Amino acid sequence: MKKYSVGIDIGGTNIAVALVTADGKIKSKIKFPTKINRGEEIIIDEIVWKVSRVVRSGPVKSVAGIGRGAAGFIYYEEGTIKFSPNMFHREVPFVSMMNEKIRSRGDKRLLGLPLYFDNDANVAAWGAYQMDVPKTVENLICVTLGTGVGGGIIIDGKIYHGADGYAGEIGHIILNPDGPKCNCGNYGCMEKYVGAGSIVERTLREIKRGRRSMIEKLVNGRLEDMTTKTLYDAAKRGDELANEMWKNTGRCLGISLAGIVNLLNPEFIVLAGGVAKAGDLILSPMRRTIKEHANTYAAKAVRCIISKLGDNLGVVGAALLVRQKDAKSF
Amino acid sequence: MKKYSVGIDIGGTNIAVALVTADGKIKSKIKFPTKINRGEEIIIDEIVWKVSRVVRSGPVKSVAGIGRGAAGFIYYEEGTIKFSPNMFHREVPFVSMMNEKIRSRGDKRLLGLPLYFDNDANVAAWGAYQMDVPKTVENLICVTLGTGVGGGIIIDGKIYHGADGYAGEIGHIILNPDGPKCNCGNYGCMEKYVGAGSIVERTLREIKRGRRSMIEKLVNGRLEDMTTKTLYDAAKRGDELANEMWKNTGRCLGISLAGIVNLLNPEFIVLAGGVAKAGDLILSPMRRTIKEHANTYAAKAVRCIISKLGDNLGVVGAALLVRQKDAKSF
Repeated sequence: MKKYSVGIDIGGTNIAVALVTADGKIKSKIKFPTKINRGEEIIIDEIVWKVSRVVRSGPVKSVAGIGRGAAGFIYYEEGTIKFSPNMFHREVPFVSMMNEKIRSRGDKRLLGLPLYFDNDANVAAWGAYQMDVPKTVENLICVTLGTGVGGGIIIDGKIYHGADGYAGEIGHIILNPDGPKCNCGNYGCMEKYVGAGSIVERTLREIKRGRRSMIEKLVNGRLEDMTTKTLYDAAKRGDELANEMWKNTGRCLGISLAGIVNLLNPEFIVLAGGVAKAGDLILSPMRRTIKEHANTYAAKAVRCIISKLGDNLGVVGAALLVRQKDAKSF
Repeated sequence: MKKYSVGIDIGGTNIAVALVTADGKIKSKIKFPTKINRGEEIIIDEIVWKVSRVVRSGPVKSVAGIGRGAAGFIYYEEGTIKFSPNMFHREVPFVSMMNEKIRSRGDKRLLGLPLYFDNDANVAAWGAYQMDVPKTVENLICVTLGTGVGGGIIIDGKIYHGADGYAGEIGHIILNPDGPKCNCGNYGCMEKYVGAGSIVERTLREIKRGRRSMIEKLVNGRLEDMTTKTLYDAAKRGDELANEMWKNTGRCLGISLAGIVNLLNPEFIVLAGGVAKAGDLILSPMRRTIKEHANTYAAKAVRCIISKLGDNLGVVGAALLVRQKDAKSF
């Protein structure tokens, strides 16, 4: 087996490209901003250029393939991004555009390498499956907590795509049908309670209502600068409001996941993404709520952890797509 | 391939035993009441006796195996019923007890036949997968609507059991965390809105509040005799309250299933069980709600139907367990 593969993680803010070993270690990595305004042609050209660079950091003929993850609904068999609300506003034939760029660049190290493609949450789930859980595990749920809330499902050691590749939309499971309107057009989606923006918004509302909190001091009075990182720092210093917000977020996550635990009886739930950096602040109330709300046996069976790969989960997971059995390459 | 197999469907009220052809046709069937008070020893003895009888209705050496479905949480690899709230109140080693009864009965036609075992909702899902959908389908969700609400999941052409065999508990997905207490100990489970008892109870409450309805007349003033069948009859005759109740039930089912559609992107949702006999009364509002609440692509992909096997789905599904690839027999 060839020692390396290339991972590409395309996010709304940044793109990461890395050369990764078969056991998931990063050999070299480049990160650069996603210049959405410049259009997908230029973005893909820049990606191919960076892929050339990281491949050159390893030995000749040592690369098994290239894997990519990107946000949005992806019709994964064709490698098309069908709908990606935070990025491109039309269907983009990613795979064929990338293949064309590789051909026109003419880098012999890239020509003919198999390309793998999946949505960012599925890639994260695959990364977590490879790196965060024991080898005996067959089923897991990965929840990516950021601005949006995504999900990936591993069943029988494979990424589960469903009928058309849209499976895993955990963020749009309905927590409260009478709840606030979500970007997806629906009401009361879990994302509206657990997404980074919603957490910050709820906290802001409490402060404006007169709740005391050290958050104002931490952002030097500029409440518009508050992030989930601020909330983490405040909670760690004992701030009551911040702690309450994390507890509440963990509880909302736990209620939604209890349903999934009842439905899928998974072996592991792995949390990833920026908001998951809150660690036990979110994990403890989430675990407690799952225990309260899911059936006793299924709740006992599931282990809930936070991915140890942090920000690298996407790029490592993408590189390891090459290692899937029966994976479709392009 | 041997032409027949035996299906056993163990419910809280009745047990059905049938000889079924490889393509799911019933050759002969016996139905008898589940005498729970007499204990599992006597029940299993009676089942084996009936199995002997239906096997004798077919040619010698034509039976491939025996499949059984039973209500409750089942640790399926051991064939033990771990927790079955409406039946046995302790763990029952079904498989070994049944094997013992077969040995002690000494019927040569039964000795050595492989035994298959699963919970009733998984068996229904397997039956629906074999009988209700095109052969090209790989993933489906089956929802059994009765006193309780169960669920079975087929993924990649196999029954999905999860980590310990508890997967599919669709009835205990939370629809409203502040809702009424469920028998499972939790609050606001879907079963509390869609289960037969809950539908009848809600209707009763409306009538007692003074809502006019022909239901009172249909049950000759004995409201305690009202069933979902009464509600079906009333709705068909244009009763406003009954129609409203079905619409509401379909909507509650649709909200829960929209989450599952977003999560699993299934090809089919098959409804089964007594309450599903309401047909379009429940299917139409359910379909509409899924369309409103699930993501556009996944909602478009899923087809929602009612199993055409009616009350025979359990016994046919159980018999066809024999036809699973990689199935574990005892």
